[in-house]
Parts: sequence; C-alpha cells; structure tokens
Amino acid sequence: MLLLIPGPVMTHPDVRAAANRDIAPWDHDVRAEVGDLLARLRSLAGGADGVHAALPLPGSGHFMVEAAIRTFVSPSSEVGGILIPATGQYADRMVRLARDAGRRVTVMPASLTRPLDAAAVKAALSADPSISHLGLVYSETSTGVIHDPEAIGAVVRSLGRRMILDAVSAFGALPITMTDHPEIDALIFTPNKCLEALPGFSVAVCPVERAEARAGSAGSWSFDLGDIYVNGLANGPGAGRFTPPIQAMAALGAALDRLDAEGGPAARLQRYRDNMAALYDGLEALGLRPFLPRAIQGPIILNVHAPAHPDWDLRRFVEALKRHGVLISNFRNTEEPSMRIGAIGAIARPDILRAVAAIGETLDELGLRPKAHAA
Amino acid sequence: MLLLIPGPVMTHPDVRAAANRDIAPWDHDVRAEVGDLLARLRSLAGGADGVHAALPLPGSGHFMVEAAIRTFVSPSSEVGGILIPATGQYADRMVRLARDAGRRVTVMPASLTRPLDAAAVKAALSADPSISHLGLVYSETSTGVIHDPEAIGAVVRSLGRRMILDAVSAFGALPITMTDHPEIDALIFTPNKCLEALPGFSVAVCPVERAEARAGSAGSWSFDLGDIYVNGLANGPGAGRFTPPIQAMAALGAALDRLDAEGGPAARLQRYRDNMAALYDGLEALGLRPFLPRAIQGPIILNVHAPAHPDWDLRRFVEALKRHGVLISNFRNTEEPSMRIGAIGAIARPDILRAVAAIGETLDELGLRPKAHAA
Repeated sequence: MLLLIPGPVMTHPDVRAAANRDIAPWDHDVRAEVGDLLARLRSLAGGADGVHAALPLPGSGHFMVEAAIRTFVSPSSEVGGILIPATGQYADRMVRLARDAGRRVTVMPASLTRPLDAAAVKAALSADPSISHLGLVYSETSTGVIHDPEAIGAVVRSLGRRMILDAVSAFGALPITMTDHPEIDALIFTPNKCLEALPGFSVAVCPVERAEARAGSAGSWSFDLGDIYVNGLANGPGAGRFTPPIQAMAALGAALDRLDAEGGPAARLQRYRDNMAALYDGLEALGLRPFLPRAIQGPIILNVHAPAHPDWDLRRFVEALKRHGVLISNFRNTEEPSMRIGAIGAIARPDILRAVAAIGETLDELGLRPKAHAA
Repeated sequence: MLLLIPGPVMTHPDVRAAANRDIAPWDHDVRAEVGDLLARLRSLAGGADGVHAALPLPGSGHFMVEAAIRTFVSPSSEVGGILIPATGQYADRMVRLARDAGRRVTVMPASLTRPLDAAAVKAALSADPSISHLGLVYSETSTGVIHDPEAIGAVVRSLGRRMILDAVSAFGALPITMTDHPEIDALIFTPNKCLEALPGFSVAVCPVERAEARAGSAGSWSFDLGDIYVNGLANGPGAGRFTPPIQAMAALGAALDRLDAEGGPAARLQRYRDNMAALYDGLEALGLRPFLPRAIQGPIILNVHAPAHPDWDLRRFVEALKRHGVLISNFRNTEEPSMRIGAIGAIARPDILRAVAAIGETLDELGLRPKAHAA
C-alpha cells in the first residue's frame, strides 16, 4: 500500500528495522545514542551547542505544542498571552490547547489560501503590548499553504516578542535556522513527517537559557520542557525522566542517516517539490482542480476539489482507491468537497505517477471522471 | 542481550514484527483494529461493554497518571483532593504529578517493605472527608512490594471515595476486575510491562459515565480523558484525536494474542512467579540477600542488597554483567547499595538460570562474590 497521507508517512525498511529490537532506555550505551540523536536534531535545526537544546517528549506534535505553550507563555494574563493567526485547523488546535491550559489567547483572522501577511501580524502585536508570544504554524496541513517564518519572525523579533513555531509538517525539508531566530522559544517537530521516521514522540528545539529559566512554570510536570532540560543537565541529555518510546527514537536515528545520505533538507525539499509537481500536473490532467494556484501550493500536501458529480462520496472513493494500492487522507479540511493527498515520505516521482494513474482508474471505475477528460 | 529490567521488557519477535510496517492511523480498517484492541483491553480489565471503556493516551504511564488525576480529581480543593500512600518512588511521582497539576495532595506515610495497611488508609480517609480520591500503586517497581487493591478498594468504596489505580507494572499478570471495583475511576497500565509489548502509550480503563461527566475538566486538552472518550463516541473508539503511536498499538495487538495463547493473566503470573522463585533461590545461593522476605516478595522485580564489599560499584557491575549478555537496572531505589532485577517479559526459567550464572561469574570476575559462597 502506497501511503499518500500527511503523516505518518511511508518509511524506508531500514528505518523500521532500527526499531525492530528490544531496547533498554536506561542503559548507558542507549542514553549515549539518544544524546547523540538529540545533538543531531539540534544541529539540523541550526541550533548552536550550548545555546540551544533539542528536547524530546512522548506523544504527538499536539502534546509538544501544549508543552511549549505551558512552558513559555505565562499563565498570568498580565505578562503572558499568545496571538495565534487562524491559518487553518492546526492553528485552531493550538488555540484550544492554549485555552484549555488556561493561557490568554488572541485569535487573529487570516487567509486560508495565502501565506500569512507579516504587516497584519505586526499590527496585531503592536496593538496589544501585553501579548508575549506569537504561535505560528509553518506548514498548514489543512490547507497546503506554507507560511513564512523569516518574514513573520522578523516582525516578532523587532517588537521584542517571542515565537512558538509549529514546524511539524515542515521540519526536515523546509528551511529554518535557530541561530537566525533568537525570537523562537520552541521550534516543534515530529519524526513522522518530512523526517520520514515513525510516530511516537515530538521534539522542541529551545534556547537553553529560556528553558532553564522557565523550569517549574508549566503547571504540569509531564509537559514541563524546562524540567526536561534540567533533567538532561543532571543526568545527561539522553536520560529521559520517564520511559521513552525508545523504538521510535532508534528509528529516527536511522532516518537521519538517510537524510544525510540524500543531501540534507534542501535535497529532500527538491524531491518533495518534484513529487508535488507530478501530482499537481497529473491531477490537472485528470480534470481535477487543486484549491491553490501553483505559485502558492506548498510541497507537503495538496487539497483538490472533488469531481463535481452528484455521486461523489469521499469515503467510497478512498476505499475504492485502496483496492488499487493507494491510500489518501479520508477526511477533508475544506467546506467544499475535496480530497487531500500528501507528497512527502520515502516516495519519489514514479510512486506519484502510479498514484495518479490509480486515481484516474478509480474515477473511471466509479463513473466520476470529469467528462472532458474521460479516458 | 537478555533484559532483566522492570520495563520495557523483552518482547517476542512476533510482537515486534507486528510493528514493522507503515500504518495509516486514520484508515477505516486501522481504526477498526484499534477499536478491537481497546475492546480487548477493556475486557482483559474485567470491564463491561457499555459500562467501561479503555482509553489510550500517547506517552508513558506517568502521562496517564497525570491525565487521570486531572480528569477525575477536581482542581477545587473544596471538593477534590487525593490521598497518596508513600509506598515508594512511583507513589512519590504521583504526588509530584498531582501537585504540579494544581491538585490538593495528602501524603500518607507507608512502609517500603510491607503491603499497605488497609486500616491505616481507612483512618486517613475517615479523618478528612474532603479527600475525594485515593491514589494507589499496585506493584511498586521501586520496592518489589505488591499492594492489595482488593482490601484497599473495599475501604475506599465503603467510604464513598474514588480510586486511581496505577497498575503499570501489574496489569496483564496480577488480577484486577473493574466490575468488582465500582470505586475505580481509572485503572492505568502500559503495554511494555506484563503485557510484553512495546512502549509508546498508556491505557486507562474508566467507567464511561464518569469519563463523560468529567469531559472538559482536566485543564489540559491533551490530558482530558473525558474528551478522549467523547471523541470515541463521535468518531468510533479507534479514532484518535491526534496521531497515535500506531506501531506500538499494533504490537500490543500481537502481544494480546500471545497472552491469550499462554492462558491469560493467571498463567502469565505463574510464569513470573516461577521466574522470581528461580531468581530468588539463585541469588541466595550466590550469597546475595534480597531486601524482602519470600512471603512479601512480589513476582515483578527483586531488590537485592549489593555484596558488602568496599569495591562495590553498581555501574561497574552492570557494565561487566552486560559483557555476559545480561542487562539489569542500572539505578537503585534503596538508600543502601542494591541491585534491581526484573523477572517479567518474554522470558522463562532457563533465561533466569542463565542470568544467575552470569551474575555469579561477574561477581567472581570482579572479586565481589561473598566469601562463604565463593565458587
């Protein structure tokens, strides 16, 4: 089965093989391996040794988003508050995570079809000096739009505010360099998107000075990134506080070897762009209409309008396509009927071409192919 | 390498093989499999269909302990509070998880070498009617003592209070039946102890009425067990809210097949008892002294005094033993020098005998064998 979903993505067999063993997380050799993994991740994020640290947390990216907000945004609404541009469903979830954690949230209206406007962010932050943080989703999996942490980060920095950057479906392919972004408190990602490894934990790269200063402030021991950092200082960065999902960590080590062999994030991004170009072209040739124009379409995931046919049913289509060996997302994030198809993971252009052919065959089978494009 | 640690334990290759594939958690077939897994776990916990539900949460058992406390113990100290008997390090951690979550905690002194005294629990609860919950650790991995949820649960029930039962290193071997324990709000366990699967998530079996009533009360979206239950009602119990550690879930399915084939928890407990008897006998024959008398020693983990030798160094011993292919815990939970050796996992008496022989050889190698027992 070819998985073309926005994650967990297809992985290479070597990555899964690294996880296929019993591992004792507390063993000194294993701790050293985990410490090494975290140092590689810090470095991949453009963090500096002694200035930044990669901190792991079991669970999905949402857990880390909550942990970062709890750790860095003060619960006192006099000194803490987070502005979240409503760029899509992942931004909406950040809003709920922050609100349920008792943090003051200001939601900023934003387009679902264009990158976030830096001037609008500047105006919103300037209008309320009591907002301490901006929460930004780098790659919005619900829309396929890539936002710009360079432009937005510069605004946040210039106004002396801090940023929490959800880079979950960006990191490993789209660029980010922590040393260029002193305004970032937490750069958040997971192994199971562009890093092409297995789900089970998330990572935040943080300035160590900030993490240390905020230890004990999260209102949750589990989600206290400061405590995770301080524990690492005391016991070595590879020593978890609780039992970690150690097999998923081992898989990520093997996945980073593959990322290095591919030529790093820039080369991976190029492969994803090629995948997306083949997907965009292929679906257009089938008569399907992507939501976003080419110039704005990001390389991670594509939202495409469903065929304008009274018989269209997403679940029926997805199940029929599975019989052709291709799995796409089975829910939509748009008001209008649509499909979401991922272009990331351990896949390349031939996989995309096979998927496009399967989509065409399935449309024909169900009598759903737009007429002008019938085979 | 033979892992004799209190978890993650040795697993069977079939269990790991089930995890060695790419899985799309949102796929309808996968959701159905996860729903099946949760129904099996509910049933294994002696829960009734429609009355109890098994709720999964990514992360270790500590995350679930925090989630259960947040969900079921009110943050208002007028109506909520938790009594935690100080039975060892896992009880201590429960105290910290509850306090950092802003819950009122009362710590009750308790023995580290005897099962908890039900009369003392009764006195402590009776003395403070404002305490709503008791937090009990079933199997204290730090001491090796098994506490008695039957006797303690009866006290909690008779006083109209509620119980959160940390059964992390008990469930799958030591007995518990939810239908006999209407006082339990959350029975908590993980896959990587007596269930002999992989780490990555935890499970709470809860009365559905309680979970539904408490939705929205946790002060954390991530850790809201009520919300997890309500999401399952809306989208099917196998539909997670966020990306789950799906490989670890698949592994647990295979591990439950093995548990069934072995004859269920009673048969597994008998194997662990046999393992522990062989370990206890073997270490005594080497001249080592267990902390607990045989009558109190639980079947999960054994604390044994280090040889009374000026050259004793736990880390040096553990590393030397590793060269014999046996890995034991490399930290101690006792004030006096000690070793901790697990008797659980996909292992049997021959493995224990091999480990005892390796321990003897290592003691000899390092000149640490108690004199009267020198080989």
